[in-house]
Amino acid sequence: MAKSDAEDPLLENSIESSRFSARNTSFMKRRYSRCKSVPGYVGNPDQNNAAPHQHPETIFANKLDFKLVFLILLAYVSLGACCFFLVRYQIKGNKTNGFIDAIYFCIVTMTTVGYGDLVPDSTTAKLLACIFVFMGMALIGLLLSKAADSILENQEAFLVRAIHMREKSSPAEILKEVETNRCKYKFYTVLISLLILMVVGTLILYHNESLDLFDAFYCVCATITTLGYGDKSFSTLGGRIFATFWILISTICLAQFFYCLAELYTERRRKSLVKWVLTRKLTASDLEAADLDNDNVVSAAEFVVYKLKEMGKITEEDITMVMEWFKVLDVDQSGTLTKADLVNSGSATLGK
Amino acid sequence: MAKSDAEDPLLENSIESSRFSARNTSFMKRRYSRCKSVPGYVGNPDQNNAAPHQHPETIFANKLDFKLVFLILLAYVSLGACCFFLVRYQIKGNKTNGFIDAIYFCIVTMTTVGYGDLVPDSTTAKLLACIFVFMGMALIGLLLSKAADSILENQEAFLVRAIHMREKSSPAEILKEVETNRCKYKFYTVLISLLILMVVGTLILYHNESLDLFDAFYCVCATITTLGYGDKSFSTLGGRIFATFWILISTICLAQFFYCLAELYTERRRKSLVKWVLTRKLTASDLEAADLDNDNVVSAAEFVVYKLKEMGKITEEDITMVMEWFKVLDVDQSGTLTKADLVNSGSATLGK
Repeated sequence: MAKSDAEDPLLENSIESSRFSARNTSFMKRRYSRCKSVPGYVGNPDQNNAAPHQHPETIFANKLDFKLVFLILLAYVSLGACCFFLVRYQIKGNKTNGFIDAIYFCIVTMTTVGYGDLVPDSTTAKLLACIFVFMGMALIGLLLSKAADSILENQEAFLVRAIHMREKSSPAEILKEVETNRCKYKFYTVLISLLILMVVGTLILYHNESLDLFDAFYCVCATITTLGYGDKSFSTLGGRIFATFWILISTICLAQFFYCLAELYTERRRKSLVKWVLTRKLTASDLEAADLDNDNVVSAAEFVVYKLKEMGKITEEDITMVMEWFKVLDVDQSGTLTKADLVNSGSATLGK
Repeated sequence: MAKSDAEDPLLENSIESSRFSARNTSFMKRRYSRCKSVPGYVGNPDQNNAAPHQHPETIFANKLDFKLVFLILLAYVSLGACCFFLVRYQIKGNKTNGFIDAIYFCIVTMTTVGYGDLVPDSTTAKLLACIFVFMGMALIGLLLSKAADSILENQEAFLVRAIHMREKSSPAEILKEVETNRCKYKFYTVLISLLILMVVGTLILYHNESLDLFDAFYCVCATITTLGYGDKSFSTLGGRIFATFWILISTICLAQFFYCLAELYTERRRKSLVKWVLTRKLTASDLEAADLDNDNVVSAAEFVVYKLKEMGKITEEDITMVMEWFKVLDVDQSGTLTKADLVNSGSATLGK
């Protein structure tokens, strides 16, 4: 395996590619016999083997590194707590421990709850609060919401497994079930998390802040929605320590709840659009429009491009862009790409 | 034009289709002569002419009806104002006119600003506020943000025209410029709108509420971020009338600002992914993977499907789904769709 390191990505790509073709063209197998000579080409000493390309998902990974998100959050809250601790005599209101109050004020500000039980009382403190709330909104909106989204997806699997435990479905069946109803299960997961957070919050407020049960619930609602009138808030040391964690998690959770609700609605519309596009009767003008290479018949790939465009998944611009590259790569101008084109395309570049 | 009404959608579709084919296959014209006999088929007395299909965009229009959004918002705020007017003696705090206070409290609650200058002081009022803030969040998050998004897109064109006025570009060039840099221009538009709203808010607070300029700015920041500590707020009748409009618009505008920021980042990543996918060197295994119908050559449409899948625009599932329908529609199992398939497909349904 001398050249295994260099070729691994290619091999991986090749395996994946085979799976891709195999699944999609299975119904055509009875008419076409698969040409198996192609994979041998991978061994040719061309540039690609010398500097193998990575799969795009490796390079442009959209998954967030949780450690990084956590560290950024920790750094931000620590910085905020230090700043507000330094100006603690310029913050007026109901105080407990200096450092806990600084962290609490920091969380209440960055989540935009803003009870008003502690308010900045000097130009410096006010300016700090302004800077801190804008950056906090950006941090929560851009970073934490995405991280929460990923956490939810992991929790989803547990929920589905719990639901289907009695039915004794196989893991593969459960996975398929999750895949088809991703939005629905995500919605349930976030709903359950939210209810648990609300109950815990209410009980802690009832127990720690000696509010009656209704007032505790009212304070929970005013907090997770980031309303924060401030008539009821966390005023004890223990309550404020709990609040720093609970406010951050529950406000993000409610935001995710509304996000899931919107996603669920979009998904339902998308599904009915897909169904409509697929089941509507084809006309001759559809055939003509789908026929990209003007050979008067519509191939499977042409049909896929036409229908996906009709569903709005891809746009005219996407197609044009790729077609322009196809033109460049098709060196012998045969209207199709073959191995011969690959060999000749060493110096091909888009001419504009 | 006896049958013009019935055929209009088809004709439109046909014209659009021609444009679609023309743009994408222009480079192939030198090899393939276009078959012009197909459009005549439109006139055939089949089911489609009797009940012409609408274009999907007409049926599943994602554009929001502004009148409807405005009416829903108006109904919601009116309902809220009436409710809070009825319980006005159960709301404590700094009061001006009963009805204006009810509307002001309603807006401050639904945008989650929650100053706390007016707070509910009975079980009924608290419950009303809880219900109202949840529904308000949903309304703003799901409906108003989308409406704002559409308004922004319209404003964008004005901005771009203003920027390019000196260069005397043609409208077509400007349109193309907007199309390519949609995210960037949207970001500038929302930034400018936000700055104007902040300046206006600061000046009104300075003038009406006799705050000094810095405190007015601090109150603006605390409001548009929905922080709303409540140490500074609108306490005069005039200020509260202004606030009802200004708070609603400016909080949505700031949310849009962060949304645009995220979009800008996503767009940049997407562009580099697209560039990478298009310019990377093709290998023999790519060719094999792209070859959907196993004829050992990659057609233009197969290349488009393969590359768009690599860019993440379409998924394996999308392709499989459409391919299954292709199989159903390909009645004579020739591996291509022709007019003959259309005639025979009268009773075709997906067999699962």
